[in-house]
Amino acid sequence: MNPLYSLFNPEGIAVVGASREPTKIGHLVLKNLLEYGYKGRVYPVNPSATEILGLQCYPAVSTISGRVDVVVVSVPNVKTLEIIDDAGKAGAKHAVVITSGFKEVGNVELENELVRRARRYGMRVLGPNIFGYVYTPARINATFGPRDVIPGNVAFITQSGALGIALMGSTILEGIGISSIVSIGNKADIDDADLLEFFDEDPNTSVILIYMEGVNDGRRFVDVASRVSLRKPIIVIKSGRTEAGARAAASHTGSLAGNVALYETAFRQSGVLSVKSVEEAFDFVKTLSWNPVPEGERVVVITNGGGAGVQASDTLADDGVFLEKPPEDLATEVKKFVPSFASLANPIDLTGMAPEDWYYRSIRLALANPAVDAVLILYCHTALTSPMGVARAVAKALEEVGQRKPISVAIIGGAEAYEAIRYLTNLKIPAYPTPERAAHALAAQIRYRRYREYLVKRATAA
Amino acid sequence: MNPLYSLFNPEGIAVVGASREPTKIGHLVLKNLLEYGYKGRVYPVNPSATEILGLQCYPAVSTISGRVDVVVVSVPNVKTLEIIDDAGKAGAKHAVVITSGFKEVGNVELENELVRRARRYGMRVLGPNIFGYVYTPARINATFGPRDVIPGNVAFITQSGALGIALMGSTILEGIGISSIVSIGNKADIDDADLLEFFDEDPNTSVILIYMEGVNDGRRFVDVASRVSLRKPIIVIKSGRTEAGARAAASHTGSLAGNVALYETAFRQSGVLSVKSVEEAFDFVKTLSWNPVPEGERVVVITNGGGAGVQASDTLADDGVFLEKPPEDLATEVKKFVPSFASLANPIDLTGMAPEDWYYRSIRLALANPAVDAVLILYCHTALTSPMGVARAVAKALEEVGQRKPISVAIIGGAEAYEAIRYLTNLKIPAYPTPERAAHALAAQIRYRRYREYLVKRATAA
Repeated sequence: MNPLYSLFNPEGIAVVGASREPTKIGHLVLKNLLEYGYKGRVYPVNPSATEILGLQCYPAVSTISGRVDVVVVSVPNVKTLEIIDDAGKAGAKHAVVITSGFKEVGNVELENELVRRARRYGMRVLGPNIFGYVYTPARINATFGPRDVIPGNVAFITQSGALGIALMGSTILEGIGISSIVSIGNKADIDDADLLEFFDEDPNTSVILIYMEGVNDGRRFVDVASRVSLRKPIIVIKSGRTEAGARAAASHTGSLAGNVALYETAFRQSGVLSVKSVEEAFDFVKTLSWNPVPEGERVVVITNGGGAGVQASDTLADDGVFLEKPPEDLATEVKKFVPSFASLANPIDLTGMAPEDWYYRSIRLALANPAVDAVLILYCHTALTSPMGVARAVAKALEEVGQRKPISVAIIGGAEAYEAIRYLTNLKIPAYPTPERAAHALAAQIRYRRYREYLVKRATAA
Repeated sequence: MNPLYSLFNPEGIAVVGASREPTKIGHLVLKNLLEYGYKGRVYPVNPSATEILGLQCYPAVSTISGRVDVVVVSVPNVKTLEIIDDAGKAGAKHAVVITSGFKEVGNVELENELVRRARRYGMRVLGPNIFGYVYTPARINATFGPRDVIPGNVAFITQSGALGIALMGSTILEGIGISSIVSIGNKADIDDADLLEFFDEDPNTSVILIYMEGVNDGRRFVDVASRVSLRKPIIVIKSGRTEAGARAAASHTGSLAGNVALYETAFRQSGVLSVKSVEEAFDFVKTLSWNPVPEGERVVVITNGGGAGVQASDTLADDGVFLEKPPEDLATEVKKFVPSFASLANPIDLTGMAPEDWYYRSIRLALANPAVDAVLILYCHTALTSPMGVARAVAKALEEVGQRKPISVAIIGGAEAYEAIRYLTNLKIPAYPTPERAAHALAAQIRYRRYREYLVKRATAA
């Protein structure tokens, strides 16, 4: 059993510092926990209240008679040690320390003592200086972030608090389904590698996204990430890549952002997909969590606009993915319904006069063709077709053939294009507003495939 | 007078190939022209109709008694030559040839003959193989694209048809105000340089965006662009940057995408901001068209999330913009209202507990400080503040101090963040959903400033 199992599947959660004051963190966390539908027992702890949000309130964790696996701590930093002692004696296994005012402001000793105390009772510490955590399979939202996280298969580990909370909201807007969000903060005890090991075994997680400023134990991270990458893609936003960024990171969490080249090498060797921006990360998450891994690198691009096709070709080439001629039989079949001047090279240009049906037919053919490994669909909103019509054509073809190959869709245009993207997103079909983003996201799948092949070879050779 | 003046400010426009059939291009163009509110005279031309959309229909341009400066041509390619003859004899100055089936499908001779004929009458040809053009100051929308283009100061020249039409729609969704959209297609006659010369003198245009696969006369483009860049930024999406992309471009418009390095050098020497993606281009358009050019490079970053600050610092550094310590007096003033653990380095981290008012005060101080040239504002949606509240704080500070310095805003979060971005967009304040995009767009202004300084020095030295 993974040592963090009971953090994510606790029988009971105590919220120490629970509050009746609606703007207090201790109130917000308790409220999210109750409203998001956690099925275990929830215990507010606050010596100066008898009831909060309809629940009986306890003066201390040790006064709770039921089993408490997790203690969420939101009290002033000077009071955290006594809470740890009390919770530890009461048999709690995990302290989720939201409280800030530790290493990030120079209180190194207090932080070290926090961990020492917890260890004395066999407790693990998440944080301190965090916004809590989410685990949707157990309906846990023990954060003061947005409530309605969408359940799904993506685990998100974040070293940054405010950015992390904001990105929780972004996952909802972007339709990204979450298995877990873990605010990891100062990483005084539980670190990225510990969480990777848990998510590796977690059947509810298939993609892991990390916002990282630095790691404490680089060697262990590489070891664990190399193992996890064999089964599940890991995407890392490595913040503080530049000297200026590293300086900013140091004044933020006090973490050493470290040598950029070292990190890049470590990521590549451990099969980690390193990205530069939040947008890239989210774009990759969509293709990687909604698509199967491609069986090869033969991408076919289908477009109604030459320009979109050129932009996608450029992006794919930048990403080391090179388009080859589409399979002969695919070209022959498509030729039957497109105009004579349509290009049947790759990109296949259905021309600006292409109706929805040509999209449906060509996508269906490409998905069914054994010599095609992935399909990139580009649609420019023209006067002749509606974005929603094309989105439906994509969905229909995919449903009929079955999602055995990765696809990525660009719907370029105005408000109607935006709606069509949302429609596809709801169906878990990765869709983007520009050809470059759709191409880059699909290329991430091929990059992951290459990394994984390399890791498999290395493991076999060893 | 610029030779293209009457293309953009015509007394009368004839639509040859006007149709009663609602799906025909000749119908859609006429309809847009009428509905968008063009104030000059519009003449449908079609020998087999007497009236279209309530207007008297003419059998030929030569039968129109009023003055016709522009003839929009949407007839089969084989009929275009006789239309040119007729319109030329009737004194038209510009033929906007929407019709396709020329050089792009190998009909080089027909295209050459089209231009030869037009020249015989002193006519200039836009196209062929285009979707028309827009000039909002004259309320001209002679395209079959979306109707409700937002008037503004951005001119957009596009070599791609379907992508160009789709991006017309994107400008509306993104709130980008347009002076002109010109579909330039095969560039048989009028090319990018001709249009740049017109937009240089056009008081309604202050930023020019070009989607380009290739240019016919590189030397002239560089000459003209170097001159225009002194006054107005030019952004170019150079498509077909890679071998694969160039191959795709060749099969698309038949244009030679040419040597990448040559283009890049030419762009840099002529002060052109070259971008790789449609999203980058639009992001840049917002900062460049809504902000003044910065007077220096001293950027101050204000954030409530350390992580967002680190990401922005990295992006700025990637773009060659390096953050220095904020001016002493600014730090002193901000220190008065932020907590002691707030970082007053650059980024200025107001901390996650920052209310709207701290944003208002620090932005106001930064904008008013003579040692600050540009302000980058990053906001992570947290439980304590609302994105709209922060957006209002930004707008208020900017209104009170006056928009004399460029700013760029990131509002990171979910649906509420999206709304706040739209609110700022409506006020022509550049706002983006991620720290990297906001930083990259602001850096574009500094890049433009550098290019322009270089051009001024070169011009002075010569």
